[in-house]
Amino acid sequence: MSLDRIFNAESVAIVGASRDETKRGHQAVKILLEEKFTGPIYPVHPHEKHILGLACHPRVSAIPGPVDLALITTPAATIPAILEDCGAKGVAGAVIVAGGFGEMGAEGRERENRLTDLARRHGIRLIGPNTSGLINLHTNLNLVGLRDAPRGDIALLSQSGNMALTLITEARLKSHRGFSYYIGVGNEADMKFHEYLAFFEQDPATRAILIYVEGMREGRRFLQQAYRTTRKKPVILLKSGRSATGKRAAGSHTGALAGMSRVARGAFERAGIVVIENSDELFPAAETLASLPPIRSNRVAILADGGGHATIAADMLTDLGLLLPTLSAKTQAALRRILPAAATVANPVDVAGGTDADPSLFADCARIILNDPAVGGLLVVGLFGGYGLRFAPHLSLKEEDAAHQMGKLVQKKKKPIVVHSLYTSEKPHALDLLRYYDITVYDSLEIACKVVGVLAQYGRYLKSYPAKVDFVMDWRAKARPEAQALITQARQENRHLLLEHEAKALLGTHGAAVSTDTLARTADEAVTCAARAAGPVALKIVSPDILHKTDAGGVRVGLDDEQAVREAFADIQANARAFAPRADIRGVLVAPMAGPGAELIVGTKYDDQFGPVIMFGLGGVLVEILKDVSFRVLPISLLSARRMIEEIKAYPILSGTRNIPPYDKRAIKRLLMICSEIMAAYPDILEMDLNPVIVYPIGLRVVDARILLKNAEADDPPLQGPA
Amino acid sequence: MSLDRIFNAESVAIVGASRDETKRGHQAVKILLEEKFTGPIYPVHPHEKHILGLACHPRVSAIPGPVDLALITTPAATIPAILEDCGAKGVAGAVIVAGGFGEMGAEGRERENRLTDLARRHGIRLIGPNTSGLINLHTNLNLVGLRDAPRGDIALLSQSGNMALTLITEARLKSHRGFSYYIGVGNEADMKFHEYLAFFEQDPATRAILIYVEGMREGRRFLQQAYRTTRKKPVILLKSGRSATGKRAAGSHTGALAGMSRVARGAFERAGIVVIENSDELFPAAETLASLPPIRSNRVAILADGGGHATIAADMLTDLGLLLPTLSAKTQAALRRILPAAATVANPVDVAGGTDADPSLFADCARIILNDPAVGGLLVVGLFGGYGLRFAPHLSLKEEDAAHQMGKLVQKKKKPIVVHSLYTSEKPHALDLLRYYDITVYDSLEIACKVVGVLAQYGRYLKSYPAKVDFVMDWRAKARPEAQALITQARQENRHLLLEHEAKALLGTHGAAVSTDTLARTADEAVTCAARAAGPVALKIVSPDILHKTDAGGVRVGLDDEQAVREAFADIQANARAFAPRADIRGVLVAPMAGPGAELIVGTKYDDQFGPVIMFGLGGVLVEILKDVSFRVLPISLLSARRMIEEIKAYPILSGTRNIPPYDKRAIKRLLMICSEIMAAYPDILEMDLNPVIVYPIGLRVVDARILLKNAEADDPPLQGPA
Repeated sequence: MSLDRIFNAESVAIVGASRDETKRGHQAVKILLEEKFTGPIYPVHPHEKHILGLACHPRVSAIPGPVDLALITTPAATIPAILEDCGAKGVAGAVIVAGGFGEMGAEGRERENRLTDLARRHGIRLIGPNTSGLINLHTNLNLVGLRDAPRGDIALLSQSGNMALTLITEARLKSHRGFSYYIGVGNEADMKFHEYLAFFEQDPATRAILIYVEGMREGRRFLQQAYRTTRKKPVILLKSGRSATGKRAAGSHTGALAGMSRVARGAFERAGIVVIENSDELFPAAETLASLPPIRSNRVAILADGGGHATIAADMLTDLGLLLPTLSAKTQAALRRILPAAATVANPVDVAGGTDADPSLFADCARIILNDPAVGGLLVVGLFGGYGLRFAPHLSLKEEDAAHQMGKLVQKKKKPIVVHSLYTSEKPHALDLLRYYDITVYDSLEIACKVVGVLAQYGRYLKSYPAKVDFVMDWRAKARPEAQALITQARQENRHLLLEHEAKALLGTHGAAVSTDTLARTADEAVTCAARAAGPVALKIVSPDILHKTDAGGVRVGLDDEQAVREAFADIQANARAFAPRADIRGVLVAPMAGPGAELIVGTKYDDQFGPVIMFGLGGVLVEILKDVSFRVLPISLLSARRMIEEIKAYPILSGTRNIPPYDKRAIKRLLMICSEIMAAYPDILEMDLNPVIVYPIGLRVVDARILLKNAEADDPPLQGPA
Repeated sequence: MSLDRIFNAESVAIVGASRDETKRGHQAVKILLEEKFTGPIYPVHPHEKHILGLACHPRVSAIPGPVDLALITTPAATIPAILEDCGAKGVAGAVIVAGGFGEMGAEGRERENRLTDLARRHGIRLIGPNTSGLINLHTNLNLVGLRDAPRGDIALLSQSGNMALTLITEARLKSHRGFSYYIGVGNEADMKFHEYLAFFEQDPATRAILIYVEGMREGRRFLQQAYRTTRKKPVILLKSGRSATGKRAAGSHTGALAGMSRVARGAFERAGIVVIENSDELFPAAETLASLPPIRSNRVAILADGGGHATIAADMLTDLGLLLPTLSAKTQAALRRILPAAATVANPVDVAGGTDADPSLFADCARIILNDPAVGGLLVVGLFGGYGLRFAPHLSLKEEDAAHQMGKLVQKKKKPIVVHSLYTSEKPHALDLLRYYDITVYDSLEIACKVVGVLAQYGRYLKSYPAKVDFVMDWRAKARPEAQALITQARQENRHLLLEHEAKALLGTHGAAVSTDTLARTADEAVTCAARAAGPVALKIVSPDILHKTDAGGVRVGLDDEQAVREAFADIQANARAFAPRADIRGVLVAPMAGPGAELIVGTKYDDQFGPVIMFGLGGVLVEILKDVSFRVLPISLLSARRMIEEIKAYPILSGTRNIPPYDKRAIKRLLMICSEIMAAYPDILEMDLNPVIVYPIGLRVVDARILLKNAEADDPPLQGPA
């Protein structure tokens, strides 16, 4: 695949190379020389003969040997001509540093699209524009200003140069791990997040992938790729720009739409991505996932010297959804044998000063604890690393012994140990040894707990993997001719809205239980229809010009005799005329009243980044005021449908209570699947709003439904199945 | 006040002093000598003549000069005799290190109580037991094993020795601030959190008070004291032990009941305390509040070089409830004049490389931004401190210049600046200068944002102070004789439960709008009562032996004619007899049916740490399943009553919607105040449960009420007004 020729380029041209030390094009050549890039470096400048001792070429096409990759540091306006020239030379990829494209509004986007088209015509893949560049740490291909990035096995994708600087600085100062690649993703004009991800999935030098994103161009494809990647390698992601102000800040320096919605977070996590909210936790999460085996049992133990840290850690791990099982009687007995009487051994284990004379006891405790089959991982908190410093220098040797033992223990048991130490800033050798054995060490208790949580989260995901089929499902469903006809009819009438009875008919075609309404054009027809319904009916106005029927006085409910129906028919007609004198009134819908049950809402719409999504909630106050709803990116599996139902806070209502039997969750699941199918089958549909749906102990009924069509002109990209 | 003689002791006895270097009693003498305690040190040992060159005394009473404070390092069993001896000597206070008291269960608690009684008889105040000790950093009175604690103006109260070690280590390694005192609070057998707080409020050497607490003995008194203290000095508190496992861990090493409930958090915050959840944020919050003026406008600006940090910071500050106002046109124009075209100047301000050649521009930007009256504080994020390191050494001078300018700017404008810097670990001089000017600096973006949030939180509190009167309200209310009679009657009948009509009568006596029920003993009486009610009625069984009337088939509703009432009366009697054959049935309550309205629940109970509390929520699903309720420690003010109503998530329901008029919030407030008054007036009442209360657009009606009395034997401490 040609991406390999780009990311592992064996030759590079620097377009815009310069003798002026303040220029990016000068610094780029200098850093490649200093870091000893393994291939030829070709400075390109129209007039210069030599730059930093290298022969300079007037243009890329004048370079004698093959050129895999070009770094273009010149302004936006010069780039099209340079790309043409690169095309002539057969360059595989170009890194475009210049801004002034998609991040600058409509005109910039237009310029960016032209650039992408040009590159495609010449078979050149683009990184950027508006990027800080690319580093391959294995070939010393450093096209970024950043020096001193430590080499290692984490691939870094970032839409912010200074976030990359932060992460690289953090790795250098606080960790033994480093990076395989850094890519400044920029505006994603051509190459997109999912393509980078696919490359790193295959890259043998990469063990974990760390992503900082502000806005993604093709969220749906990214999810599909992530779903495949995360079963092989952990992907850790921070997405900023949640708040309106944050979006304003993000919007000003990347070209894509920002925003971390609940939809996005949920979708990322269901694709197996570890989503991080706090930037302080981002590198530690990636470092730990690249270093240690995941926790597959969700159960951990805490080992401490003194109670304060253990208490806080227990709170935090519990908040993170982990379980702290009471250790078995056998484990407790074994700990008792080596610890003083004041120790507690249930979990958290508090050695209560028992390690003061010999901190290698930590390793003995760790061995006993990890031998307990109920324990999937261990968090050591507090003072380890400081015994030699606090009490007596010879204790450092005991701590180093403990580090060796714990390191081998992790390798043997395949259960992780994470260490929190007050003494990291003093850099005791024991902590370096732990890191050498891939045990991660943090001076922040929160971060230590968080990375344990992340090991458990990834472990849970891997365990449940086969059940997660949403993102590989075939996103195609057959349109039914009679339903398609309703849409065609609306299009012919230039309507974006299906009328209520049309919407219900469409839903009914796919098997949804809709109320059996009939359209009455006259009062007599309404009476006949009402007589056919066994019980009271509701009348509702039918007009493409009246969206909110209640506001127009167009709804009457609970009509149980002929006179009531006639009066209601007349009232509704009169109200509608008064509300909208020129409205096209098609008649009145006669609907049997739904019996009492629980009110639901089901809706679908298009998300900016992920395309079609579905929402579910309990009707009325719970949705409108408490926003107690669940979301999924479509299509959904039956399992996802079940989870959507179980996820809302008001779920216990559906499970029945002392006086109320449980409602028909099977019927709800089926309705969610039908909505998923409909969104796949009719790309014309923009959104659906089924509100209310009444569910009963057996079955349900869609009482009202609204379907909106896309603008006929809208040029939505076709929905994609897996590539 | 005698506490001064303890905390600023001028002479100290070390009981249990020893020549054995491994003993606490040896180390205590050694550290006092090394740290040059300013007063005389008296080692006490039955046989030794000299310890570490100091004359040793066989007992405290044998010491020639006066002794202010005794540190007792001997085991639990020896302490009573030592205290007797200290009493004879006139010692003011004793620090008791030994464990084996309240933290060890009932027997230990008994031992602890005897110790406290003994100390009181001898006029000695106790710190501990089960404490790491006490440090006064101004007199070098160090009775703890900890060395190297930096001197400063933060008073530290902790129930965990290793949390204290963490905080002291953090201060030493990362800050310019230090501590005035450290007190290991231990089991609070005698001296309690509120007494320490009162001392530090008055202490001129203390600017901020930092508390780590696991469980508090007298929560209510602490709140009352904190309410007074926090208007003068910030109090920062972390309370651990939220989770069940955390409580297990905490329970094993302090003697008090652990647990951070929603009640506790809310109560602390209303007393002006800055409550911290993450231990990483604890010292930074205290450091910043001790260093910088609070933000009184809740509005801040962000200044960055590059977008990533600005975006994340904007998200976080927004999450913390701060506003990021768009800067005024004048401010933006002034920034434009000094920054490059690529800069953004709306807020966040991104200098976009404009400081690369001269980082002193940061100070110019800060001056322009803080001159904007809409801005109450500034957060600088990213690269400050690293320009000299990254680009050219002479830029360090420019950074130092900027630090001087920003420091003076804070002093002049009385608006805080907080700095986030990637380069703190490199210790550039510019960052030291900032700290010298009391500008706090963090390498964690989260922590930098959090401390800005904390400055704003404290500022909001100080601004709203006069409205916060709960904790100084006089907690006395008059009992009404007719209501007291109901309680007396129940007591005579040996009942803990007031019958429904008694509970309503009691509420009615205090002006609550209860439903006008009548007790009917016969079916004829029931019919007469029902006829008097204008509309349908409900019948409910009245029996001290039936707590849950519905479960016993003891409730019938919607009865609208004589026959229905007679049938219901007979059914209810029969059901009740079948349910509890020996039940004492007093009759049947005839209650007019309440019209439709919104259902509320109001409850009161005793909290373990804070005494009587009140709860409010909307009835049914919202309380039972979604736990959408608000709490307050009693008594409440009218303002608190309003806030309780506004705080629940479902509040918009009460404000009315498109179709529903607003409900009578005044009536709800009044009912909450009545409940507050009743809990004050009748110390016999353990809890009240008003469920449901139906509220209407005008007025409300208590439809059912339950009042439980305390066990007659219960020995609750009397409720306290302000001391």
